Amino acid sequence: MTMDCPYCRKVADLDQLPPEELVWTFPLSAVLLGSWQFYRGYCVLVLRKHATELSALTDAERRQFLEEMSLTAHAIELAFHPRKMNYEMLGNQVAHMHWHLIPRYPDDPESLQAIWLPVELAATDPAVASRLRGDPASRRETADLVRLQLRKLTQAAT
Amino acid sequence: MTMDCPYCRKVADLDQLPPEELVWTFPLSAVLLGSWQFYRGYCVLVLRKHATELSALTDAERRQFLEEMSLTAHAIELAFHPRKMNYEMLGNQVAHMHWHLIPRYPDDPESLQAIWLPVELAATDPAVASRLRGDPASRRETADLVRLQLRKLTQAAT
Repeated sequence: MTMDCPYCRKVADLDQLPPEELVWTFPLSAVLLGSWQFYRGYCVLVLRKHATELSALTDAERRQFLEEMSLTAHAIELAFHPRKMNYEMLGNQVAHMHWHLIPRYPDDPESLQAIWLPVELAATDPAVASRLRGDPASRRETADLVRLQLRKLTQAAT
Repeated sequence: MTMDCPYCRKVADLDQLPPEELVWTFPLSAVLLGSWQFYRGYCVLVLRKHATELSALTDAERRQFLEEMSLTAHAIELAFHPRKMNYEMLGNQVAHMHWHLIPRYPDDPESLQAIWLPVELAATDPAVASRLRGDPASRRETADLVRLQLRKLTQAAT
């Protein structure tokens, strides 16, 4: 863990996170509800230890981490039936490995593009930020619905 | 296979692809050298059958497909030592599953962002397209260098 890494700080104290932010805890990762709930169900799956590329993990860790990613994406699909899922691990700004798992819907005005152009606009345009953030009051229910599907999927797997 | 899917058409005839485009053939996927070699070593890993989400694969297929993705990303890292790898499976325009495996370098003017903003500009701005495309004459060597690392990694794994 490095305390100058924002994701290391975030996962150091998962118990402190409210239930509308911490969706699920896996052996190797934690599922956090994303900021931009215009993409309803958008989650960020953060590796619980500090590592910056898949190749830095052992074979067993990498397979488990990707299994946790796949389960989370599937849970979002089951909860919200998006048109398409986007799976992205970038790390250009924060290299600590984290997957953006982003459901995309037909009513999205940028449905054919990655979400990063509107997300960047949100930094300077309050109207875009407000649209992308969605209704803060719905976050708890959204987290609950993803969690319900993760519970079913992980119980089915054992 | 559906013949109105561009990736189905592409993988239907892998033998027809030149060696600077077809980098590697795995059991479940094919590695194609990406169009935008400003990101030197950028590859697109295409599933050889038509499926649009990880959840549509069997457990064994999903694990194998993600193993092939991880091996390819590792080979790009070993060949070109990027600052960071970007791993992205979007499918907003073509839903057939394909991973964009994009090495990012320190001299990239948009190094903190995903590549999609400049890639979109390239559609209408020939100067951006030319910068992103890189030197066509270097594609063969780039494909060879990724292939060399994939050969070492897959031999080490057996």
